[in-house]
Amino acid sequence: MAKIGILGLGTVGSGVVELILKNRDIIERKCGFPINIKKILVRDESKKRPDYLKEIITYKPEEIINEPEIDLVVEVMGGEEPALTYIKQALNNKKHVVTANKEVISKYGKELLELAQQNKVNLLFEASVAGGIPIIIPLKESLIANEINNIMGILNGTTNFILTQMEENKMEFSEALDLAKKLGYAESDPSADIKGFDAARKIAILSSIAFNVRVTPDKVYTEGIDGISYTDIKYAQEMGFTIKLVAEGQRTDDGIFVLVAPVLLRKEHPLSSVKDVYNAVIVEGDAVGRLMFYGRGAGKMPTASAVVSDIIKALKTDEKNRLNCTCFREEEVLPIKLFRSAYYFRIKALDKPGVLSKISGVFGQNNINLYMVIQKNSVDNIAEIVIITYETSFKNIQRAVDEIKSLDEVSEVSSVIRVKEEV
Amino acid sequence: MAKIGILGLGTVGSGVVELILKNRDIIERKCGFPINIKKILVRDESKKRPDYLKEIITYKPEEIINEPEIDLVVEVMGGEEPALTYIKQALNNKKHVVTANKEVISKYGKELLELAQQNKVNLLFEASVAGGIPIIIPLKESLIANEINNIMGILNGTTNFILTQMEENKMEFSEALDLAKKLGYAESDPSADIKGFDAARKIAILSSIAFNVRVTPDKVYTEGIDGISYTDIKYAQEMGFTIKLVAEGQRTDDGIFVLVAPVLLRKEHPLSSVKDVYNAVIVEGDAVGRLMFYGRGAGKMPTASAVVSDIIKALKTDEKNRLNCTCFREEEVLPIKLFRSAYYFRIKALDKPGVLSKISGVFGQNNINLYMVIQKNSVDNIAEIVIITYETSFKNIQRAVDEIKSLDEVSEVSSVIRVKEEV
Repeated sequence: MAKIGILGLGTVGSGVVELILKNRDIIERKCGFPINIKKILVRDESKKRPDYLKEIITYKPEEIINEPEIDLVVEVMGGEEPALTYIKQALNNKKHVVTANKEVISKYGKELLELAQQNKVNLLFEASVAGGIPIIIPLKESLIANEINNIMGILNGTTNFILTQMEENKMEFSEALDLAKKLGYAESDPSADIKGFDAARKIAILSSIAFNVRVTPDKVYTEGIDGISYTDIKYAQEMGFTIKLVAEGQRTDDGIFVLVAPVLLRKEHPLSSVKDVYNAVIVEGDAVGRLMFYGRGAGKMPTASAVVSDIIKALKTDEKNRLNCTCFREEEVLPIKLFRSAYYFRIKALDKPGVLSKISGVFGQNNINLYMVIQKNSVDNIAEIVIITYETSFKNIQRAVDEIKSLDEVSEVSSVIRVKEEV
Repeated sequence: MAKIGILGLGTVGSGVVELILKNRDIIERKCGFPINIKKILVRDESKKRPDYLKEIITYKPEEIINEPEIDLVVEVMGGEEPALTYIKQALNNKKHVVTANKEVISKYGKELLELAQQNKVNLLFEASVAGGIPIIIPLKESLIANEINNIMGILNGTTNFILTQMEENKMEFSEALDLAKKLGYAESDPSADIKGFDAARKIAILSSIAFNVRVTPDKVYTEGIDGISYTDIKYAQEMGFTIKLVAEGQRTDDGIFVLVAPVLLRKEHPLSSVKDVYNAVIVEGDAVGRLMFYGRGAGKMPTASAVVSDIIKALKTDEKNRLNCTCFREEEVLPIKLFRSAYYFRIKALDKPGVLSKISGVFGQNNINLYMVIQKNSVDNIAEIVIITYETSFKNIQRAVDEIKSLDEVSEVSSVIRVKEEV
């Protein structure tokens, strides 16, 4: 029998308890031993809890972290501290650790994996990325023989819900955000989601594993979706695109890029049809080709599914098949200015002859070829110009944006969004 | 260092050798030890082979199976015998076995896993289903905490290529099959693919794992795609459906159904957009909800990717985390006559008043409600009638087919195909 302690009884923690109890029989049959929840750490002493939990509830973390009988600690508190400290203590006390904590893993994954290895215990974190979708273990194990060239995905359900609502119900961003809050898909302070930070943590974790290079969130170029307006989505649709918040790690001949940003994806692109709170990850390996993993990227029971499978794996894994840190390549993430992509521009400018040629001229001077220029309807003598460029470096794009902004005839560069033509 | 022997140097075998050599460095870095190919069994002595293979080629299986230095045997010969005998001998000689052999695993998986367990070695077979897509290990490990309620997929690339060609290029079945042969996607005797037997073996393996029940191919109700005509695809399209060869294992309140058959899927169904030789598997777990795994279901390097990851896993796994047989439920697959689904009918009948009512009457007498009846154009006084029923048992459908066929006014029941309304 394996004895575990759980730090945290929020959504994920409750899901883990519920799942272990509900599927107790099949879990034991499949894994060979029962899982016994010895203690659960909670914070709020005043909260009512079911009777069957009363005996195992504790308010003292040391009753789990320092308890000799406990083999494994599940950390599902979230946030950086005190989670990080508890994880370290548990590892130092020779306990396996399973965590769903993307903040902690994305920043301190390497140190923690090394600490686990020193203490001859396991640290697993499948639930930290894409909820119930198995992606971390498949990347580490099933794709072990591949050199991974690209990993991209929709890793944040909140922003994907917002973008789906904007597109399908012709909503502006703020309206869709309000709906997401109402439905419990967005937090009262939604900035980690809508600014792209949550996705940045997740792609940092995935890129580290995929490329065997240490990628921390501060190395990830990050844009959110708060600058996207319904107009952009409408224009994108007219041209056969959907706008998605895409997290991507790319291995190029020059090195590695990791970024989170909205992207115009062709309707035929597999990520285009990922809607609402669903997540998906596309992996491209040199042997396996393109794979996609799709499912619920968050939620109580899907996340619990990942946590419980990690618990069993951690309890069964020893020295020989421990999943140690595999960031063995000393390589820096390349600066975003070198990143190459096509871009979409929406520009407001005076509706008079010569303006379009002046704007086009700026692109030309910056070595940017234009794929498509559309002049939209003019209101009050201000025309909206939509431009899609050919692939160019982000440096060129930034320079062009600055120069276009400084043109007297231009009142606003409303949007600059990456475009992915390939499907 | 791990020493392996490979039985077979066809497409998959060559891919395995190529991948181990090409990604030697990263494989060693990630798995902790080098993989040394000690011997490769080939059949054809007259065939030219690259120089670097000459030293390790053998024509005698016992030089691999009985060689004490070899830790692990890779079986990539295909077919039932002598593969089965070699696998048994290797296991009895305490060698791990990795195989891509769906015939052997679908029929003898349980016995072989038990034999492996007795001999304290590992038997892995990720490549036997869906080529490079990780599905067997994720099912066994990542979804271990779930009760799986449904597993369905497009598991045969050849038939999916044919159906895609028929739909996109308005081809008849025989024309698309010829194209598939020309492109090397179909064998000269394509019956295992087009009759659904290949998919039946794969869904037998997946259902056994998903439901913890032993399902062998002979228990799988199997229909192929050779009865599908372009007319069916065209009519399906007009009603918003795509026709796919779907392999499905379903857990219902009454028990388990496992079948392979063409299905009209809504265009919005995630399997509808799986085209050409791609494969996809959808798994529904009680905790995780719906997951989809998508990628290349066959081919030299994708399959090699799965085989090599199995090699590493088999070499690293010991007693504690061995993947033993998990068919612990004594349960029979239910007879197909009890299976419930909606169905599509295409019927040729005399174009005269009263015929439609007579046909509808037969459905009514068999307790089948009709969802949609369309009378298509009449040629030479013979009308084509397309009917979609509501959900009913297959027994009722079979009875209705017999009775409709016996009507004087009916010249042909051209097609009876399952319909899945849910997306």
